[in-house]
Amino acid sequence: MKMKIYIIGIGLIGGSFAMEMRKLFPNSAIIGIDKSENNINKAYELGIIDKKSCLSEISDADIILVSVPVKSIINLLPNILDKVNKNSLVIDFGSTKNSICDVIKDHPNRENFLATHPIAGTEFSGPTAAHKGLFANKNIIICDKHRTNQSRLEIALKIFKSMKMKVSYMNPDSHDKHIAYVSHLSHLSSFMLGKTVMDEEKNEKNIFDMAGSGFESTVRLAKSSPEMWTDIFEDNKENIIKSLDDYIENLIQINNLIKDDRFNEIELQLKSTNYIKTILKGIN
Amino acid sequence: MKMKIYIIGIGLIGGSFAMEMRKLFPNSAIIGIDKSENNINKAYELGIIDKKSCLSEISDADIILVSVPVKSIINLLPNILDKVNKNSLVIDFGSTKNSICDVIKDHPNRENFLATHPIAGTEFSGPTAAHKGLFANKNIIICDKHRTNQSRLEIALKIFKSMKMKVSYMNPDSHDKHIAYVSHLSHLSSFMLGKTVMDEEKNEKNIFDMAGSGFESTVRLAKSSPEMWTDIFEDNKENIIKSLDDYIENLIQINNLIKDDRFNEIELQLKSTNYIKTILKGIN
Repeated sequence: MKMKIYIIGIGLIGGSFAMEMRKLFPNSAIIGIDKSENNINKAYELGIIDKKSCLSEISDADIILVSVPVKSIINLLPNILDKVNKNSLVIDFGSTKNSICDVIKDHPNRENFLATHPIAGTEFSGPTAAHKGLFANKNIIICDKHRTNQSRLEIALKIFKSMKMKVSYMNPDSHDKHIAYVSHLSHLSSFMLGKTVMDEEKNEKNIFDMAGSGFESTVRLAKSSPEMWTDIFEDNKENIIKSLDDYIENLIQINNLIKDDRFNEIELQLKSTNYIKTILKGIN
Repeated sequence: MKMKIYIIGIGLIGGSFAMEMRKLFPNSAIIGIDKSENNINKAYELGIIDKKSCLSEISDADIILVSVPVKSIINLLPNILDKVNKNSLVIDFGSTKNSICDVIKDHPNRENFLATHPIAGTEFSGPTAAHKGLFANKNIIICDKHRTNQSRLEIALKIFKSMKMKVSYMNPDSHDKHIAYVSHLSHLSSFMLGKTVMDEEKNEKNIFDMAGSGFESTVRLAKSSPEMWTDIFEDNKENIIKSLDDYIENLIQINNLIKDDRFNEIELQLKSTNYIKTILKGIN
């Protein structure tokens, strides 16, 4: 099938998706749009996209992927839906879903749009970090599928399944509430762990010598993009505050148990938290 | 060189060390001591040790490695030093150093002992998790080296260097203070993150579907041994309370920034924390 596939935001996620789309639809044109000159030129040089374009050109699109930070999706999406033709399928890959679904809920072309969140990514960003296979065996959550035209939905599902993604469905409220705990909180805990240790260890040499793979693993997410994550924290503010409140409360209680020498209770608590092993096995 | 090498505590660390010692000294006898019948039998079955023994037998030892949890080291070490011969080298691998160095500081055989902490390990435990190469390119911190007999110290250094470990020196106080930040705090943050998410997500299915590699990475340490870590938290109590206080303070301040919609300040803070990238490069 010869199609016009637009990728708005040609970074790690958009770039990796573009690579998979080229494999699935080798005769199609992959067209990139990005506000960063640097990113779009890089993506073109790397052959990830065939052509650079801009938003005013998208009315001939068969498929449009919107993979920019959440706040930009909210800004751009109504404008994108204004321009699409009746057969266009517009997919977003935003990390939150409530405000995105909300901003276009009454748009006349609402049914051309599918709200999704692929649980894929790394702590790196930009088109040079893009690679094939990023989406294989990863979950993708689709929200409000009944608001998308059935034939558009089927095209999207076919694409996701060809990329070996595991599809599940959720309403946007539940998505944002749960993702705050299993993703956004991890990022905040990692950023603040990095900050705490760097504040204390002015003399870096001590960190180099003493930090092992455990530290590296827990602060890995502190390498993530500040722009993207600030956007997410703002957009999912209420859920994130609640998850942070819970986390802080747990840290205060274990700190109090340590202060009060209640180590038997600590051991019991760590033992029951070890159950995470079983849960993590389910992720792999 | 034909030697008698005793490994007290034949788990992940002791077992991995035994494997390396067998490679370095193929004609030597590797003798295991462990209070867990299960561990010692497993280590014997796996061929990690040649013989099972007990503490009353160690007076013929050339080298003794003590790789049991911190509290057990403190209990056993005076007793071990009572029994050694004048040429024995006793090394401990405890995760804290202050109370260990303290408990034998006036022992008549103090100079047979070398206090060390190899920054190596995984979230797994027991002899079945032991493997060759665990120590290669890892740091090992030696404390109070001037309290060890020079020729014993040289033997230890030769062994560590043969295993490709990078040796550095510190006093026990500094060790315990810094390690609280770069290791113990990571474990607490990970355990409490696991607890927070599991408390919230009673319906596990949501975690399976939504958690990605980021979550997995930040909660990996929550799989660690509760017995070993409770011991460490108890032994390094004062330093850990301070690191937890700092961490909680940082989490409260970012939560307040979120509550007050001060997202520009958040972005700046995440940007400066991104500097951890440079530090982590130094670790690898």
